[in-house]
Amino acid sequence: MGSPKSLHGVNFAPPRSFGTVLKANLKETLFPDDPFYEFKNEKLSKRILKGIQYFVPICQWLPKYNFGLFKFDLLAGITIASLAIPQGISYAKLAELPPIIGLYSSFVPPLVYAIFGSSKHLAVGTVATCSLIMAESIQQKVKPEDNMQLYVGLFYTATLISGLLQTALGVFRLGFLVDFLSHSTITGFMGGTALVICLQQLKGMLGLKHFTSHTDVVHVLRAVFENRKEVGKLSKGINPPSLNLINFSPEYISVVLKAGIVTAMVSLAEGIAIGRSFSMMDNEQIDGNKEMVAIGLMNIVGSLTSCYLSTGPFSKTAVNHNAGCRSQMSNVVMSLCMLLTLLFLAPLFGYTPLVALAAIIMSAMLGLIDYEKAYHLYKTDKFDFLICMAAFFGVAFISMDMGLMMSVGLALVRALLYVARPPTCKLGTITNTAFRDVEQYPGSKQTPGMLILKLGSPIYFPNSNYVRERILRWVRDEQSLENSKRNEIEYLILDFGGVTSIDITGVETLFETRRSLAAKSIKIILVNPRLGVMEKLIVTRFIDVIGKESVFLTIEEAIESCRFSLNSSSQTKREDVEIA
Amino acid sequence: MGSPKSLHGVNFAPPRSFGTVLKANLKETLFPDDPFYEFKNEKLSKRILKGIQYFVPICQWLPKYNFGLFKFDLLAGITIASLAIPQGISYAKLAELPPIIGLYSSFVPPLVYAIFGSSKHLAVGTVATCSLIMAESIQQKVKPEDNMQLYVGLFYTATLISGLLQTALGVFRLGFLVDFLSHSTITGFMGGTALVICLQQLKGMLGLKHFTSHTDVVHVLRAVFENRKEVGKLSKGINPPSLNLINFSPEYISVVLKAGIVTAMVSLAEGIAIGRSFSMMDNEQIDGNKEMVAIGLMNIVGSLTSCYLSTGPFSKTAVNHNAGCRSQMSNVVMSLCMLLTLLFLAPLFGYTPLVALAAIIMSAMLGLIDYEKAYHLYKTDKFDFLICMAAFFGVAFISMDMGLMMSVGLALVRALLYVARPPTCKLGTITNTAFRDVEQYPGSKQTPGMLILKLGSPIYFPNSNYVRERILRWVRDEQSLENSKRNEIEYLILDFGGVTSIDITGVETLFETRRSLAAKSIKIILVNPRLGVMEKLIVTRFIDVIGKESVFLTIEEAIESCRFSLNSSSQTKREDVEIA
Repeated sequence: MGSPKSLHGVNFAPPRSFGTVLKANLKETLFPDDPFYEFKNEKLSKRILKGIQYFVPICQWLPKYNFGLFKFDLLAGITIASLAIPQGISYAKLAELPPIIGLYSSFVPPLVYAIFGSSKHLAVGTVATCSLIMAESIQQKVKPEDNMQLYVGLFYTATLISGLLQTALGVFRLGFLVDFLSHSTITGFMGGTALVICLQQLKGMLGLKHFTSHTDVVHVLRAVFENRKEVGKLSKGINPPSLNLINFSPEYISVVLKAGIVTAMVSLAEGIAIGRSFSMMDNEQIDGNKEMVAIGLMNIVGSLTSCYLSTGPFSKTAVNHNAGCRSQMSNVVMSLCMLLTLLFLAPLFGYTPLVALAAIIMSAMLGLIDYEKAYHLYKTDKFDFLICMAAFFGVAFISMDMGLMMSVGLALVRALLYVARPPTCKLGTITNTAFRDVEQYPGSKQTPGMLILKLGSPIYFPNSNYVRERILRWVRDEQSLENSKRNEIEYLILDFGGVTSIDITGVETLFETRRSLAAKSIKIILVNPRLGVMEKLIVTRFIDVIGKESVFLTIEEAIESCRFSLNSSSQTKREDVEIA
Repeated sequence: MGSPKSLHGVNFAPPRSFGTVLKANLKETLFPDDPFYEFKNEKLSKRILKGIQYFVPICQWLPKYNFGLFKFDLLAGITIASLAIPQGISYAKLAELPPIIGLYSSFVPPLVYAIFGSSKHLAVGTVATCSLIMAESIQQKVKPEDNMQLYVGLFYTATLISGLLQTALGVFRLGFLVDFLSHSTITGFMGGTALVICLQQLKGMLGLKHFTSHTDVVHVLRAVFENRKEVGKLSKGINPPSLNLINFSPEYISVVLKAGIVTAMVSLAEGIAIGRSFSMMDNEQIDGNKEMVAIGLMNIVGSLTSCYLSTGPFSKTAVNHNAGCRSQMSNVVMSLCMLLTLLFLAPLFGYTPLVALAAIIMSAMLGLIDYEKAYHLYKTDKFDFLICMAAFFGVAFISMDMGLMMSVGLALVRALLYVARPPTCKLGTITNTAFRDVEQYPGSKQTPGMLILKLGSPIYFPNSNYVRERILRWVRDEQSLENSKRNEIEYLILDFGGVTSIDITGVETLFETRRSLAAKSIKIILVNPRLGVMEKLIVTRFIDVIGKESVFLTIEEAIESCRFSLNSSSQTKREDVEIA
């Protein structure tokens, strides 16, 4: 075996100060994308300018804006406005709100988003899922037919809570919490919601059939026109202020809190995922936390101007993108179209029949049931499929929040299992300097007298007992092999390259493992502990206990050193053994 | 740079079947210590015998038991019995139970443990913390002075629930859940509990002072004797059955459930940690799940025979060990001593004065406040210290379960942060074949045109966005260096050795990252994907997209191959650059 000379010995540098480590960790936790990197090495005036441009993106793009770009945005804006009117009315009906509120919600929030939002493609509007979640939650306390004003007020309150939460998450850079809603959860959740909505619409359609048992066009049309009066009257005028309707009374606080929190997370997950995917097509990057602030602000302002929860719906954003939008200006155009509609045309839309609305909703919903994605999950990852199905069936058969909780719960169990049961593997020699998992590379060779294990995760309280038991089991398995393959271990070489951090419980586990192995006359050798881990091992004196001479930078150096000091008596009997 | 020839190419074997993977994962999750390894390759009759011995450890040690061992156990048993009587009475007083129940609780459970328990040193008895938790919870509904029979009945019910939960956790091999109570949490929790108990006793003592303002011995003793009637009467006779007192009525179910669940976890954490530490001294291993079943069974039987929650208290176990116990027989001896006490001596102990009991409790409690451990935590790991302090102050100033929840919550946040923010690092060359973190080994060299990153965790839903942003930031940082150090990357080499698993969200992230990099004309190279990860990458066709030729077994092979195809024009301009 060769003798590679290192440029360095093991780095036993004294641990960094607590402040340094804390700062590094906070930065990595809260600012992983280093949002202020453009400001570095700039003059103060430039920094302030860039800071304003960073926090209020309109200051960045509007000065460079020109008529050439506006032509595209005008077209895109008119297109999404034509979509926003029927969608707004439909989703408001879904939430059993007066339809005009759906139109209001496409007027104010897009303006706010145009100022603070950083995605060029996101088209703002209400979404079916959140409309339904809010309705389901609030109707536990108030039925719209009993007290419409209170019912609407609670929607605004939930929207305000949602907006405040979204803004806070963004400001405190806790956007990663949204990542805990995995793609599988969202796929199942959307599918389940769509199914529920479709069935509701079907019920509505069946209800209409009562009026006519004939299914031909004439009869259906007549039934539709006879039922025209079922459709709410739409009055002219723009959004009235709604601060007076905000209602934090203790009787309703639990349902609005629940509605606000759940819809905040769901709408963020949808809005950010969609903004991100479209900007990825154009190879731009979106700061998720900044987007949260923008979405949160538009909901705060919205809740005070008679709008309920809005985000960036997929269908509208896709249309916006395909219509060739160039900037956030398309949202402004849509907003102005809505203004004209509200001022002059609203009464006309009052005559949109229920069946047409149901058709609009159903066609939008059917697109949300993503069979192919579910099948893909089934083929590639059974556990992800389970998470998806938990959301789908939970939403379809129990309730929206239960379905969401079941699915997120399952996903967290999986995450905690990754944490509690980190993989370890036995390494064998492939080349003189490469050591790989013997299970994956069955031809790799083992060195007699030694056992090389690779640990692949932090060692800390949820897994430290497991890590100890697993190490001892590897040792036992090795020693209990049949005669010829039996490996009398003298050195346990632990490849610590994959141990990314360690806590006090983990260090105590190492001490215990060392004691157990010492009783069997097995010595522990550490290879390549990483920076943070090495610091912890030095400060807890583990390194002093095993000795600095037991820590190596590479596995081959460790093997070479151990081979030299193996009992010479037993060494003569041994040869490299190939694993069957 | 050398050209090491691998014995193998990359293993692109077709994925293992779902069943195989599931079986392997379940085994690793639930049977990490492979408890049945002794049965393998045995005949059926032998297997049955070993099976019985495994599940009922007394069948294993009793046949080999002899008088020589019994002499030690007799001495140890009598010693712990002499401790059990005052402790039993004191802790029962702490829980405001009739003191005789404390004595009952040291009679039946030790017998059950002797049959099913596998630790030789664990001495069974009641503990102060759980006594107090149960009392705190149950007194929310029932005060002992109002209805003592109901109060006692709820203690038995909570004990039954606790026992059932403990048994179930053990049977379903979910013992690792107890590991989520980290050492830091337990240190703080014990300290906080001890402080609360001491203050309560002090209050009791100050209350006594009311009767005498003199602090001399004569007056105190007189006060004590005057207050003798405060001490409950102890009647002769062994444990009466208590099935009739078990009370699952809906009015009380919430408090007994809470008391049962919290004490189940706390007592398991204490009992198992203690059994484990003592057996470790003698270099034996304890199966935590089997211990849970034993502790659970003794509490189930106990709850039906007028005993409340017992586990293995530290003080008693330490005394048992120091007195030289050799087997579970010492618990049997203690139990028999308690039998004699209950039959003949109980009335005498009725005269133990309150002050003496308070002194016993306080001396036991002061030992539980582990300043040194707390200081050690402060010196070595600030976050662990915070977790410890949360438990200490939470218990001391809010309530026991809030303190526990705050501390476990903080610990979980930390665990989830490990999950959500996995470390990545840039690798540089140390020897031809060894690549290490450039931050830790600042002298390591980088290869121009390439960026080598090591990812160190599963890539899955909670961290996939972070992983993508972090990778793109590494690339950006590399390209934005000053002129001379600027590294025009053509290849991004990802060392996947530390990526222990990946889910669908993670794979989608890889696809996205690949797209973003492709737009910058950077090619992704994978090195050493592990077994499970490779299977997932094959089945999702990621390997097909990047091409099998972009996957290497070692970093040096990847570098060699990439170096060959680097743009020759730019290559002439470049040299290895040393990182400042």
